[in-house]
Amino acid sequence: ENVLDLALIPGDGIGPEVTAEALKVLKAAIGEDNVSTTEYGLGAEHWLATGETLTDETLQAIRGHQAILFGAVGAAPNDTRIPSGLLEREILLKLRFAFDHAVNFRPSVLYPGATSPLANPGDIDFVVFREGTEGLYVGNGGSMRTGTKYEVANETSVNTAYGVERVVRAAFEYAQNRERKHVTLLHKHNVLVHAGHLWNRIVNEVGEEFPDVTHDYLHVDAAMIFLTTDPGRFDVILTDNMFGDIVTDLAAAVTGGIGLAASGNLNINGTAPSMYEPVHGSAPDIAGTQKADPTAAILSAAILLEQEGYADAALRVNKAVWEDLAARDSTPRTTQEIGDAIAAAV
Amino acid sequence: ENVLDLALIPGDGIGPEVTAEALKVLKAAIGEDNVSTTEYGLGAEHWLATGETLTDETLQAIRGHQAILFGAVGAAPNDTRIPSGLLEREILLKLRFAFDHAVNFRPSVLYPGATSPLANPGDIDFVVFREGTEGLYVGNGGSMRTGTKYEVANETSVNTAYGVERVVRAAFEYAQNRERKHVTLLHKHNVLVHAGHLWNRIVNEVGEEFPDVTHDYLHVDAAMIFLTTDPGRFDVILTDNMFGDIVTDLAAAVTGGIGLAASGNLNINGTAPSMYEPVHGSAPDIAGTQKADPTAAILSAAILLEQEGYADAALRVNKAVWEDLAARDSTPRTTQEIGDAIAAAV
Ligand SMILES: CC(C)[C@H](C(=O)O)[C@@H](O)C(=O)O
Ligand SMILES: CC(C)[C@H](C(=O)O)[C@@H](O)C(=O)O
Repeated sequence: ENVLDLALIPGDGIGPEVTAEALKVLKAAIGEDNVSTTEYGLGAEHWLATGETLTDETLQAIRGHQAILFGAVGAAPNDTRIPSGLLEREILLKLRFAFDHAVNFRPSVLYPGATSPLANPGDIDFVVFREGTEGLYVGNGGSMRTGTKYEVANETSVNTAYGVERVVRAAFEYAQNRERKHVTLLHKHNVLVHAGHLWNRIVNEVGEEFPDVTHDYLHVDAAMIFLTTDPGRFDVILTDNMFGDIVTDLAAAVTGGIGLAASGNLNINGTAPSMYEPVHGSAPDIAGTQKADPTAAILSAAILLEQEGYADAALRVNKAVWEDLAARDSTPRTTQEIGDAIAAAV
Repeated sequence: ENVLDLALIPGDGIGPEVTAEALKVLKAAIGEDNVSTTEYGLGAEHWLATGETLTDETLQAIRGHQAILFGAVGAAPNDTRIPSGLLEREILLKLRFAFDHAVNFRPSVLYPGATSPLANPGDIDFVVFREGTEGLYVGNGGSMRTGTKYEVANETSVNTAYGVERVVRAAFEYAQNRERKHVTLLHKHNVLVHAGHLWNRIVNEVGEEFPDVTHDYLHVDAAMIFLTTDPGRFDVILTDNMFGDIVTDLAAAVTGGIGLAASGNLNINGTAPSMYEPVHGSAPDIAGTQKADPTAAILSAAILLEQEGYADAALRVNKAVWEDLAARDSTPRTTQEIGDAIAAAV
């Protein structure tokens, strides 16, 4: 029997609340009996109790599952007990790197009913392919004369043909199945000559294998302008880890906020489970208040279903979210109420 | 007699058109006799004719002036005769680095009459202090196995306490003279631990010397959200070279477009001339059509006046721009007509 075997990492802040709703909807979509879950209690509390973020044993255990549903990790910024960024690095980023999440897949759709801060957003429907295992995120930095007025602190962005090629190929393959079939590389090759040259080369090489997919290039700074004045122009955006981090938050903002932005961290060679998570963080300020919108987590579960072989169920979840959003008015609903409504519609 | 001795670098594309109007307004503000100009014909044409971008001799000649009024450099993206990024690096960036432009000063104001793409922009009035001589812009990159499928391409962001401290101090000094007296550091210290730690440390240290200035911290990705949903919250933004490049284009976009965004590349220790330039590029697609808006160049001339000891004239230019913008309707005007109108009002 085919049971979807999930690792759950609800995490901190609003993570557990939104993950519970995502799981509820996922179960409604494929049937409770077809899902098995194992919860891993990682995050601030676990660290405070044990001093551990994510041990090798736990990592190995998680590796055994088919996929990971992730909430959010991160302590409140004013919680001085927890070193800033520690949980993000030692849990979230560690999972992305250990499980070789080559593609950070982040769709941006302006759903009906969602409110964009833009006066004339137009139709927005693009996907960002953010490289997930390289760039400035590799942790290749250091400092000397630290703490003195002679300190030098370096951070090195590492880009390999291997790593770039696989996310580029994934983006082109994906674009080929879309209507507009267009890939836009965002980089800053006029300044980052070496990395930029590598990205350009691979895009041109891989692009030749996809004659029906067009592609162009934009400097990441210029992309800021187009994302606010004409976001509808984008179909598939392809970029590195750091630029992708920045661009996907802007993309989330213009499509109605981080409360709707979903993502998949995809292992594309089957060596480890992929991980699905809302783009938003743990929002400690509203944790436990049932004020968080679980839609981003639910849409992340839809990406999970799509990627893990439940395309039909994924469609139904997307449709239910679409309808729920279109019907929203200003009446406030709790996290659970939104989850219940979407689960019922699935 | 005190004559303002300017180096003019009109550059490529719309650069010469907008620089002409900026100079016209500047002369109107302090009197034609009080300005002397020397034009340096750098850019695409010069490179095509001579193979030279910016020689040491020319650099030395420019160094002798009090300040530089810069238009834009950069060839058309489809002009295959000119290596992509060459002019930007060997002219614009070379000037910034050679003349130690520690602070890239970029105000963002939503002028009356300017159209923001945001539905509810609110009052926007902040200034970005972008570090100008370090970070990913230092050119410390390289690649190995170049052109093969085993290529590795690195780019290193270099940050020094010396370089960070001077832009941090400049930002706090500036904030102290503003109403809200608030500095927001943008970085990504949860990922870029070493550089982030240095920036945080220096901000905290320098911040202690300015007890009346408050300061906080935002991840650069989160800043994308606030810049589109609540840009009015910012007073003085402080950030590194690469993040500053990205953030100032978004800031320009939300305040009505790159056609209004001005900047000063400031040498703050008096060792070389500062350089004033519109944030926009050479826009080859509209070059020579008199369609470019010279306002960004004119506002850059106002920053020049302010910084070079003509505060009163700077105020008059700003006021004239303010009034011109407020009175704009949909009637198209040429580059020259806009410059004439503002010059007449000064
Ligand atoms: C929490 C942080 C490390 C993470 C990132 O920078 O990738 C987040 O911003 C994201 O976009 O998923
Ligand atoms: C042209 C380019 C090198 C430059 C930069 O990246 O600084 C530009 O984008 C800017 O913001 O002034």
